[in-house]
Amino acid sequence: MERSYLDWNATAPMRPQAREALRAALAVVGNPSSVHAEGRAARHLVEKAREQVAALIGAQPGNVFFTSGGTEANMLALTPAIETAGEKRPRDRLFMSAIEHPSVRTGGRFSRELIQDVPVMADGRADLAALAVAVGEASRPLVSLMLANNETGVVQPVAEAATIVHAAAGLLHVDAVQGPGRIPCDIGPLAADLLTVSAHKIGGPKGVGAMVRRDEDIHVRDPLIRGGGQERGIRAGTENVAGIVAFGAAAEAAREQFTGEAAHVTRLREMLESGLKAISQNSVIFGETTERLPNTTLFAVEGMKAETAVIAFDLEGVAVSSGAACSSGKVQPSHVLAAMGVPPPLLHGAVRVSLGWASTEADVERFLDAWRKLTTALSKRRHGMAA
Amino acid sequence: MERSYLDWNATAPMRPQAREALRAALAVVGNPSSVHAEGRAARHLVEKAREQVAALIGAQPGNVFFTSGGTEANMLALTPAIETAGEKRPRDRLFMSAIEHPSVRTGGRFSRELIQDVPVMADGRADLAALAVAVGEASRPLVSLMLANNETGVVQPVAEAATIVHAAAGLLHVDAVQGPGRIPCDIGPLAADLLTVSAHKIGGPKGVGAMVRRDEDIHVRDPLIRGGGQERGIRAGTENVAGIVAFGAAAEAAREQFTGEAAHVTRLREMLESGLKAISQNSVIFGETTERLPNTTLFAVEGMKAETAVIAFDLEGVAVSSGAACSSGKVQPSHVLAAMGVPPPLLHGAVRVSLGWASTEADVERFLDAWRKLTTALSKRRHGMAA
Repeated sequence: MERSYLDWNATAPMRPQAREALRAALAVVGNPSSVHAEGRAARHLVEKAREQVAALIGAQPGNVFFTSGGTEANMLALTPAIETAGEKRPRDRLFMSAIEHPSVRTGGRFSRELIQDVPVMADGRADLAALAVAVGEASRPLVSLMLANNETGVVQPVAEAATIVHAAAGLLHVDAVQGPGRIPCDIGPLAADLLTVSAHKIGGPKGVGAMVRRDEDIHVRDPLIRGGGQERGIRAGTENVAGIVAFGAAAEAAREQFTGEAAHVTRLREMLESGLKAISQNSVIFGETTERLPNTTLFAVEGMKAETAVIAFDLEGVAVSSGAACSSGKVQPSHVLAAMGVPPPLLHGAVRVSLGWASTEADVERFLDAWRKLTTALSKRRHGMAA
Repeated sequence: MERSYLDWNATAPMRPQAREALRAALAVVGNPSSVHAEGRAARHLVEKAREQVAALIGAQPGNVFFTSGGTEANMLALTPAIETAGEKRPRDRLFMSAIEHPSVRTGGRFSRELIQDVPVMADGRADLAALAVAVGEASRPLVSLMLANNETGVVQPVAEAATIVHAAAGLLHVDAVQGPGRIPCDIGPLAADLLTVSAHKIGGPKGVGAMVRRDEDIHVRDPLIRGGGQERGIRAGTENVAGIVAFGAAAEAAREQFTGEAAHVTRLREMLESGLKAISQNSVIFGETTERLPNTTLFAVEGMKAETAVIAFDLEGVAVSSGAACSSGKVQPSHVLAAMGVPPPLLHGAVRVSLGWASTEADVERFLDAWRKLTTALSKRRHGMAA
């Protein structure tokens, strides 16, 4: 059976450019720290990839630090030990939106009592008034606000948050893993001080990411992984050369094809959402009236259980998810929807469809066909016909 | 120019089996945490690789935790928060040999004042008498002793150390990254409680490794990287699926071909060392009379600078190193040789040659030819003929 993979926010297929770059990199044997020709060749590959990743987010290559992924980059960035040229004392508080990814929600290296939530509004955006009040009570706060939510796709008011945070002598970390290739995410206009990106969300391999800093004035003083002096002392361990190279190639492709790909997924999602509503008038699309990633639809229908729906879609050849893919395979109510105040009947029934550059109209049609079947079954059950 | 890569301890070329497995894994799109078919396929690949890595070191698959490499595995293992079924209080001290890898030498998550060195003897082996005295003064020590040193190749008395450590109610961590495929390294006979392995030292890709525990009674209570519940809560972040799969394939190949490969490198190294001594009678091979990895030769000649020699070898098409490859490219005197009490004239001149399964007699001959040229140049200079 042909299948439609519509779970791009969980992980995206590798781009052909990334696959080819990875294949070529595997032939380079050296350790980038070695001084011989083989080592220098590996070093060259890593530094070229650093330039490509930097270009994707408008940063200088020297401000890109490769990690094993978005989760590690978040753990690395969220530490009290961030200095700026003007401020050498540790960050005294961490504020994070209630809808951050679990790897941010852990609070990184901050102790529990220094961490405080910033609520979100019903539309799925962080509450900036609450943020302003919160940071006003700290003297050197660090704030973590994602660029776009992985479940709803809702784009967060990052630049506005940055203004508030900087006015309070704070620093802003932005988990931007869902952004590149979908919405603009230059570190400059976002006014982020630290930013996290992940390779596998943009068509690179799983297991690679980066923490990016605004400029040389930002210093993360306590590396999470120490040992050799790799990544200018910020992240030890022999570099994942092939993975980094593929990340670079994916970043370049995502940057070059941004306009076309964003338009492509926008068009497909319109088709998907209008089809969805035509089939089930009572479906709710979360964040519908807010700015969202152009590729993401999170929807629910009363009486539908997400777990059941995901399995039913899977049997019909359509891969979708119930919120985030992280971890256990256990389906728990979404902390994102809970933070938005979504009532219980819908809370347990949210299904996420996320598209990408390789998605097609046929994928959307397969999804809608499956949804038609599923709603018919739901409706029969609701009307007691299952007995 | 054809080249000879003789720096396998820095990083090994990918095994064909690993390359092929990686290539195949790239076609599997899913996130292992996703419940749909694509996710389950990715999960299946990861769990198969876990079995392969477990088999390499005689562990149960459930006791293998994938990381981004040896460095991260060491950072993860070296924490006061290791519990056993019998002992729930934190480890009170960390003892490490003076010749550990930099990622162990950092002390992981132990604070500086809880860390103590265990000296090594002139032959490059850890001083077990000193270890016994040291652990006797702690109540719940953690000891880190590598299986074989990356610079000298000297095999450490791990099983004997384990007896001492366990008698003192301690736990033993073994950084075994240089072992698999070269010497036996089953976790059982070694009696290690925690063990570190790395993919790229055995023909897998860079950027993948594992921390392995003896059994379910060992609990590392403070994950280094938190977020999603991957790796049973011990290591968050979307798994490096392709890298893990290639690690598994490399582990299987290394295990299956162990006997033949060990004999092969043993024979080549004999050829190399006898040739070396025939050319320069005054050369010193470190740890020569001790049990060493069969693939490693660390040697020096008075008056030779390692930095110069490595560059000269490189120009002759031979990739060797001056001690460890880690990090900065800056050549510093080896902490390993310093700990062994090697005097300064030799300390700055040590060159490491390390072989692997794909090494050939032609490689050894190219190395010896280059060495002949280099010693002639050295000798001319020493006799004032450079003027």
